[in-house]
Amino acid sequence: MQISKLFLPEVSQAIESGDLESLRAIFEDLHPSDVAELLAELSPERIAAIVRILRAPGIKVFEQLSLEVQAAVLKHLGRSETVKILEEMPSDDRVDLLKKLPDETVDSLLPLMAQADRDDVRKLLEYGERTAGSLMTTEYASLPAQITVLEALATLRSIAPDRETIYYVYVTDPNRHLLGTVSLRDLVTAKPIQKLEELMQVNPISFTVDTDQEEVAKAVAKYDFLAVPVVDKERRLVGIVTHDDALDVMVEEQTEDVQRMGAIEPVHEPYFRAKFWLLAQKRGLWLALLFVSASFTGTALRFYHSTLEHALTLALFVPLIISSGGNSGSQSVTLITRGLALGDIRGRDILRVMMKEGMMGLVLGLFLGTLGFFRAWMWDSSYAICFSVALALIGVVTAGSLIGATLPLLFKRLGFDPAIMSSPFVATIVDVTGIVIYFSVAQALI
Amino acid sequence: MQISKLFLPEVSQAIESGDLESLRAIFEDLHPSDVAELLAELSPERIAAIVRILRAPGIKVFEQLSLEVQAAVLKHLGRSETVKILEEMPSDDRVDLLKKLPDETVDSLLPLMAQADRDDVRKLLEYGERTAGSLMTTEYASLPAQITVLEALATLRSIAPDRETIYYVYVTDPNRHLLGTVSLRDLVTAKPIQKLEELMQVNPISFTVDTDQEEVAKAVAKYDFLAVPVVDKERRLVGIVTHDDALDVMVEEQTEDVQRMGAIEPVHEPYFRAKFWLLAQKRGLWLALLFVSASFTGTALRFYHSTLEHALTLALFVPLIISSGGNSGSQSVTLITRGLALGDIRGRDILRVMMKEGMMGLVLGLFLGTLGFFRAWMWDSSYAICFSVALALIGVVTAGSLIGATLPLLFKRLGFDPAIMSSPFVATIVDVTGIVIYFSVAQALI
Repeated sequence: MQISKLFLPEVSQAIESGDLESLRAIFEDLHPSDVAELLAELSPERIAAIVRILRAPGIKVFEQLSLEVQAAVLKHLGRSETVKILEEMPSDDRVDLLKKLPDETVDSLLPLMAQADRDDVRKLLEYGERTAGSLMTTEYASLPAQITVLEALATLRSIAPDRETIYYVYVTDPNRHLLGTVSLRDLVTAKPIQKLEELMQVNPISFTVDTDQEEVAKAVAKYDFLAVPVVDKERRLVGIVTHDDALDVMVEEQTEDVQRMGAIEPVHEPYFRAKFWLLAQKRGLWLALLFVSASFTGTALRFYHSTLEHALTLALFVPLIISSGGNSGSQSVTLITRGLALGDIRGRDILRVMMKEGMMGLVLGLFLGTLGFFRAWMWDSSYAICFSVALALIGVVTAGSLIGATLPLLFKRLGFDPAIMSSPFVATIVDVTGIVIYFSVAQALI
Repeated sequence: MQISKLFLPEVSQAIESGDLESLRAIFEDLHPSDVAELLAELSPERIAAIVRILRAPGIKVFEQLSLEVQAAVLKHLGRSETVKILEEMPSDDRVDLLKKLPDETVDSLLPLMAQADRDDVRKLLEYGERTAGSLMTTEYASLPAQITVLEALATLRSIAPDRETIYYVYVTDPNRHLLGTVSLRDLVTAKPIQKLEELMQVNPISFTVDTDQEEVAKAVAKYDFLAVPVVDKERRLVGIVTHDDALDVMVEEQTEDVQRMGAIEPVHEPYFRAKFWLLAQKRGLWLALLFVSASFTGTALRFYHSTLEHALTLALFVPLIISSGGNSGSQSVTLITRGLALGDIRGRDILRVMMKEGMMGLVLGLFLGTLGFFRAWMWDSSYAICFSVALALIGVVTAGSLIGATLPLLFKRLGFDPAIMSSPFVATIVDVTGIVIYFSVAQALI
């Protein structure tokens, strides 16, 4: 990654001076991802010019640009250049890009593409967002079961250039039903006269086109696969999801979880590319919801108005008490939501979780309660206030831990995304609980 | 994943009745990861018995168990069985397991292992935690540059069983210096008489043994590699990091970030396996720190004691105002920390980020300020209080957004993990700011 940065001055200079030969020489030494990273700083028009100069390697670079940049660059390329790029791209990336283009543009480009590519695009465009179908590539290697290893290797040699991977070969019957898989490793180590049907792993793990993409990605991670097959409703092989796309999905889904937990509607663009007003909406919506639920703290405080009038000192500890509850809730929410995402915790574990978190909350509450007692005592508060603060802290930390653990699990069981139960949301619920506990104790003691 | 659950009753029955043949038949149809998942519910003693019965496939299953379970199972296996398993395991997994065992056990096992394995273990044990050296496997395929494709394929065929992957072949000189890489795909499609030196990709991206594991994992993800080579200080090839281990690192680092952001010291065990008192320590430490910083809210409130005595109604809005600031801070912390982790934002972007977050905070503050004004008005508050609440909300939401964005970036620039700047930590800082703004405005207006 450091390598590409070193080239930055040379690249800018070559671009400034229009020295195309140097540019091509520099880029030849770099990985297409690094070139794409360098280009991303330039205007779409410049990028288009460079992609055009680089020819075949230019398409590899183009593929590594973000979808937004790809779409912007295409505006500066001719239709025949665009079609050439689209035909060369992996089928899954191509469809992702076409989805970003206006319908008229797609309609004008499709007739120019080769029949096979056109059909492929039409089929892939139909699959729902975030499904295995929308994630898969159709450029897999499939072979019949009766051929020998020698024949298989010969075929693979000729079809390899058009296939995203040949490390896994899918064995199918004449109706494209998936019979098994053979790895290139097995092919290379097997006897040349062996038949694929003797060699293949039968009953391979496969997914249907409408499977959620996260489920597919998790399976790739769990089984350490390079790719998994995707089949249609008739169990015919229609595509594969490769390890690199699975990894991208894992990162994307994690980003969503993190953002939901931080009380933002998921933002799919990199930070600086995200549109200001769209981001403001995504944040404002949650802030407003949290504002409304936090208003109940005021309602609760109002209820204890007379207590507060008698002992105004009580007010000094309100933020401390509710923030301690919120923090303990935030810890539980984080542990449980992450545990659910990793599969360490399941929806049915709710009682076990409540037991553990209840105990944990009590232990942590006793600890903070002790700290709180001395903090109040240092401010020369009466014993009644010291005890109120301590007991309130024990109650609120325990409640925070329990509520923070239970809400994501409840959401999971109801079929929602547990990450919606964000830390701030739990915190506002715990806040009201905290005020009620604190003042009830104080009223009884003072 | 569903598949394995279906087998659960059959497996329990076969185990209960000691019907080993059925057990072996069931397990033959399943992926070792699924078998490991089923076994994980049993006692280490039972698992040991089953691993022993399954023989060779049993070792594959053993490899998929978590390190804690592996270590527990070994206690119930004889020394010669243990050595056999260790010799069969991939070199990286083997060392991870040995690190979990008591030193005496390791010392008693090492002499029983084959010389080559023993040396391998000794070398790998030396690399620091979380480095490329500790993550890599030494079972890579390397070949000299002068041999032909035909010779290369013949050699690969014979060494394949001991190699973690043969899809990437590393071309080295007699002193093991890395010259280039050739993929099996290239070998299969090349002419048999071509030499590796004509075919190989020179200057491959490589990492030194002490590179941080996260950097290696990110490169694997960025370049869509199946593996990356790891070299020692003399640039000699010593190992490779494979895509599946890179993915595990991505998930692990992600979990740490999430937990830090939720104010917990990273917990490395699955939720139910994590020891109660260790977890209590990890949580209690942060809660205590946050408690101390939250105490300053009390100090701040105390400072405004007389204002509060004059207008007790002001107290009703304190929790609402500070929680709004905390929420806006939490959103910014989340966006920025995630952006840093994904590489969308860099340390030097601090001014751009502050501009964007400052504007965002102002917009969201105006929005919440308007909501706050009406909320206060609904409670029949005086106009002075309505305006105090509104202005305080504008100030605190802007401050939250700015502080939440700046602190992770500052931490990053100082060389710390930006995720340490957890949402709760930012919230407590924003709380004090909120109280100061609120009461300063109120003092001026009332």
